[in-house]
Amino acid sequence: MLMHSTEARLNALRDELTGRGLAGFIVPISDEHMSEYVGDYAQRLKWLTNFGGSAGSAVVLAGDGYTGKGAAMFTDGRYTVQVREQVNGEFFDYEPVPESSPAAWIAKHAPKGAKIGYDAWLHGIEWAEKAAAVLAKKGIELVPVDGNPIDAVWQDRPAPSAAPAMPYADEHAGRSSADKRAAIADWLKEEGYDATAVTALDSVAWLLNIRGKDVENTPVALSYVLLKADGTAELFIAPGKVTPELIKHLGNAVIVRPRDEFEPALAELSGKTVALDTDHAVAGIFQALDQAGARVVRAKDPTVLAKAIKNPAEQQGQRDAQARDGAAIVKFLRWIEMNAPSGEIDELTAAAKLREFRNLDGDMRDSSFDTISAAAGHAALPHYKVDEDSNIPIPPSSIFLCDSGGQYNGSFGGGTTDITRTVWVGPGEPTAEMIDRNTRVLKGHIELSRATFPAGTNGGQLDTLARMHLWAAGVDYGHGTGHGVGSFLAVHEGPQRISKSGGAFTGTDTPLAAGMILSNEPGYYKPGEFGIRIENLVLVVPAEIEGREGDWLGFETLTFAPLDRRLVDPAMLTAQETAWWNDYHAQVLETLSPRLEGDDLDWLKEQCAPLAK
Amino acid sequence: MLMHSTEARLNALRDELTGRGLAGFIVPISDEHMSEYVGDYAQRLKWLTNFGGSAGSAVVLAGDGYTGKGAAMFTDGRYTVQVREQVNGEFFDYEPVPESSPAAWIAKHAPKGAKIGYDAWLHGIEWAEKAAAVLAKKGIELVPVDGNPIDAVWQDRPAPSAAPAMPYADEHAGRSSADKRAAIADWLKEEGYDATAVTALDSVAWLLNIRGKDVENTPVALSYVLLKADGTAELFIAPGKVTPELIKHLGNAVIVRPRDEFEPALAELSGKTVALDTDHAVAGIFQALDQAGARVVRAKDPTVLAKAIKNPAEQQGQRDAQARDGAAIVKFLRWIEMNAPSGEIDELTAAAKLREFRNLDGDMRDSSFDTISAAAGHAALPHYKVDEDSNIPIPPSSIFLCDSGGQYNGSFGGGTTDITRTVWVGPGEPTAEMIDRNTRVLKGHIELSRATFPAGTNGGQLDTLARMHLWAAGVDYGHGTGHGVGSFLAVHEGPQRISKSGGAFTGTDTPLAAGMILSNEPGYYKPGEFGIRIENLVLVVPAEIEGREGDWLGFETLTFAPLDRRLVDPAMLTAQETAWWNDYHAQVLETLSPRLEGDDLDWLKEQCAPLAK
Repeated sequence: MLMHSTEARLNALRDELTGRGLAGFIVPISDEHMSEYVGDYAQRLKWLTNFGGSAGSAVVLAGDGYTGKGAAMFTDGRYTVQVREQVNGEFFDYEPVPESSPAAWIAKHAPKGAKIGYDAWLHGIEWAEKAAAVLAKKGIELVPVDGNPIDAVWQDRPAPSAAPAMPYADEHAGRSSADKRAAIADWLKEEGYDATAVTALDSVAWLLNIRGKDVENTPVALSYVLLKADGTAELFIAPGKVTPELIKHLGNAVIVRPRDEFEPALAELSGKTVALDTDHAVAGIFQALDQAGARVVRAKDPTVLAKAIKNPAEQQGQRDAQARDGAAIVKFLRWIEMNAPSGEIDELTAAAKLREFRNLDGDMRDSSFDTISAAAGHAALPHYKVDEDSNIPIPPSSIFLCDSGGQYNGSFGGGTTDITRTVWVGPGEPTAEMIDRNTRVLKGHIELSRATFPAGTNGGQLDTLARMHLWAAGVDYGHGTGHGVGSFLAVHEGPQRISKSGGAFTGTDTPLAAGMILSNEPGYYKPGEFGIRIENLVLVVPAEIEGREGDWLGFETLTFAPLDRRLVDPAMLTAQETAWWNDYHAQVLETLSPRLEGDDLDWLKEQCAPLAK
Repeated sequence: MLMHSTEARLNALRDELTGRGLAGFIVPISDEHMSEYVGDYAQRLKWLTNFGGSAGSAVVLAGDGYTGKGAAMFTDGRYTVQVREQVNGEFFDYEPVPESSPAAWIAKHAPKGAKIGYDAWLHGIEWAEKAAAVLAKKGIELVPVDGNPIDAVWQDRPAPSAAPAMPYADEHAGRSSADKRAAIADWLKEEGYDATAVTALDSVAWLLNIRGKDVENTPVALSYVLLKADGTAELFIAPGKVTPELIKHLGNAVIVRPRDEFEPALAELSGKTVALDTDHAVAGIFQALDQAGARVVRAKDPTVLAKAIKNPAEQQGQRDAQARDGAAIVKFLRWIEMNAPSGEIDELTAAAKLREFRNLDGDMRDSSFDTISAAAGHAALPHYKVDEDSNIPIPPSSIFLCDSGGQYNGSFGGGTTDITRTVWVGPGEPTAEMIDRNTRVLKGHIELSRATFPAGTNGGQLDTLARMHLWAAGVDYGHGTGHGVGSFLAVHEGPQRISKSGGAFTGTDTPLAAGMILSNEPGYYKPGEFGIRIENLVLVVPAEIEGREGDWLGFETLTFAPLDRRLVDPAMLTAQETAWWNDYHAQVLETLSPRLEGDDLDWLKEQCAPLAK
């Protein structure tokens, strides 16, 4: 019999913990690769609490001696409402992050001497070290568990995906895996390391030129790589995913072993020096190597920077994918313009229609993230995710915001898209405030698009360019301006980032380099009323300025789709900004018109006419 | 008999080192307070090497077993030429910083087992820890000396200044010392610290509302403070500096002790918890407290942030001082315009004339730093310091740059100024390149002046505003954009700083707060040809923007002096930038005309006429 109620699941988990001598357990949303998107088999927090958001964690205390409800749910400001709708407050405290944290809450509610379990294969080592230190001050011990206790009581737990791993052609990757491995082997030798574990799924995919279907939104295969200083590698992957084609693609220098041999293989590294990235390798790997007597050096995953700098084949694949995506966006925007003013379209229908338009392209493989289809006040929540409960009709005479992307792969190569368009839903005219704010967001988007800057400049230095015209009016937006984007891989990737320097996110001090792809997505959000975001992807390119002193960089825009001129006040634009608008829309028309016909093409031509002053 | 030659001084030092069993010694430019400007008594590097720059260090090896010359001089890129002119290359290697460092050079040239001395009262603790670690890898030991060995052989070493310390009136400081001490005592209690040592000379001066004349350019008195959690303080100062007036001003809660009792007093803190700032307290203080059995906690000097935020009395003192300074600058700029085109004025004469104009104000006490009086190619060196050797006549038809400041104090209060003006020296017209570059520097200066930004914004986020118009042309400047400025105190003070984020300097992640004063000084430098810098001081103020969301900040300009319109292309300015120029010059005229008359006033009126489009 399956357990359907939160209470039954909590009771089962508490019995399991007590049986193991544990006074509590910490439940994150994570997998063994610290992935941003997690397969169904690893959705333990959702099973336990019914929480459907993408970031959060829970703590369950068991046995005697704890105070209060003995369970808490930790979420950030994005989920303040959602967590109360989805998670039963009879059993869980609602704890805000970052004001509260699992360790701080446990220190308050668990008895002295308690042993609190955590799954070391789902947490980073730095998190584990910090949490252990906080708890130790209160006489509480944090201990890694031997097998996740939720898995022991989760009766209908889905199996991990069995999808085969697929070769990704060298001509699309632009560089052979052997070449990539040789470069990293050189780095290992230079630094005096014997090996490194490549544990992030997109790092493995990039390194071996393979792709998979194991995780939603990101075309990766569940696997690990151990890479040696001699350039050889071991790939740890479920045997069912391995096809003869894959074996041939990997070649002799890559030994394929079952995924469950990864942990034992770490023990074989006794006496070796192994480089591990604390941002990408879970605590369990650090602990296994320590126990094996290996020397662990904390170093950046050597694939991350190399992966971020796209080679010409990857750049071309991205350009092609963006054009395919742009054609779908045009069909969608025209469909919204024709149908939404009636008030009969809701957010879920709109998202489904967009997926339908994208699917017209035979090389569209997946969304690159869950579509943000946000009407009116919902658009003021930058990370809004529409579901059956939240879904509302798009109101007439409102602003509609859609942030979405696709994963494309075919004979042309591969690419990952991410685009946000904000449109006025008629009838009638937007308010003066809406037009002012949207024009300021546009000015920031243009300021960043047109920027040129010396080599060595980082994203923290560029962020203000996207905000300055909003700041002049006393307003701002509460998220970063740009993230890295993979090449038919993760829609969020490092190491670069355009965001406030000195803020919570890493990457703002990474110098931008030619070949990197970033989003450019300033916004403005008026709580309860409307939200605005304008997002294109841009490629960092050398800037050939006459008379320049040293190496200079700038951006090439990759994303092509019209912007809504009804939300723009042309009088607020400088001559240079108006020229940018007109040039951009001329490029939109040139790039997309071969992919459109009939009414769609006519509509696009109207959208791309020069802006009237 | 005095030793005049470098060789004789080196030999004497080497004998002294050998006598002490030391194989070498490190000589910085520093004092016991880690001051930026150092009294004559502490100019040990200059005595030993004849180097006259403001940043650098030397190493001298002694005894047997070292390789090469056994002595090296370390300077950064500013002093590449100067060090070769002033320091004898027969005896010293020239080592570039940051590519080389004393520790790296010693590791290469000193024998294994060597004991290298350093004066722990002239170095920071973090420097000592890092240098010791680098040397330990090579089997070399870094040891603190007991008394500086240079002092033992420097026969005519000047005594430290005997100038009296003076009260600084509470009405000018805007806040009583008792109130400042109480606030810091509260902080000590809150953090669980028993005491803190206030060791930076400007921190002592601010905390006790005293000023002195012991260091050039900065009105401070050589002294230390030990501040206790009960709000009492001990001031350690040479008895000859203490007047009855000072004793009365300090009151009963401040115990005055001789300066040489400071080190013994540290030993009295056995068992106590003492907060020390690694940026301001020398290694010797950390070591003395360690040896005494005190617990040392590394924490920021609690006076630094409080000192940076100027209260209304300090703000008014600054405004008054800037107006006095502006009147002197107007007289100087007119004098340059009338006399320099003949080619008969040289850089030293110009600097002396500026000092003469400043001295017309009876409340001018000192320069706030050595005047940068730089003609033609010299102006391309941002830190150029004119002396008898470097002095050149200002060439006709060239650009002249002057960066200078004064320390003002009188019945009006007190203030510290720092201003740079760049002017065209006729006859004839500047080149199109000069006008383009100067106009871009001006646009950056205006962009930063006009910026408004949310509370919490740091200087790293604003820096790009001053550079963006130069970046558009493929050029940049190699220094920061803005530093903090004291109130009749140090012309460079922390914690805030406007500079590239992720760069070498601290402070770019300190949020700006209302009341902070900063310089706004973008520039452009064409090596060997010309240099441009436009510098005003600005005060951070609340920005009252209608419709703003949250607290907003902006800048009030404090510095008033005309800019040279001959170097500006009005066609490159936006309407808003032209309006800034005209508003600024209207304020210059309004502020300075009461202080000027006759030809000076007439000339100023011409300079302040609206800019023709």
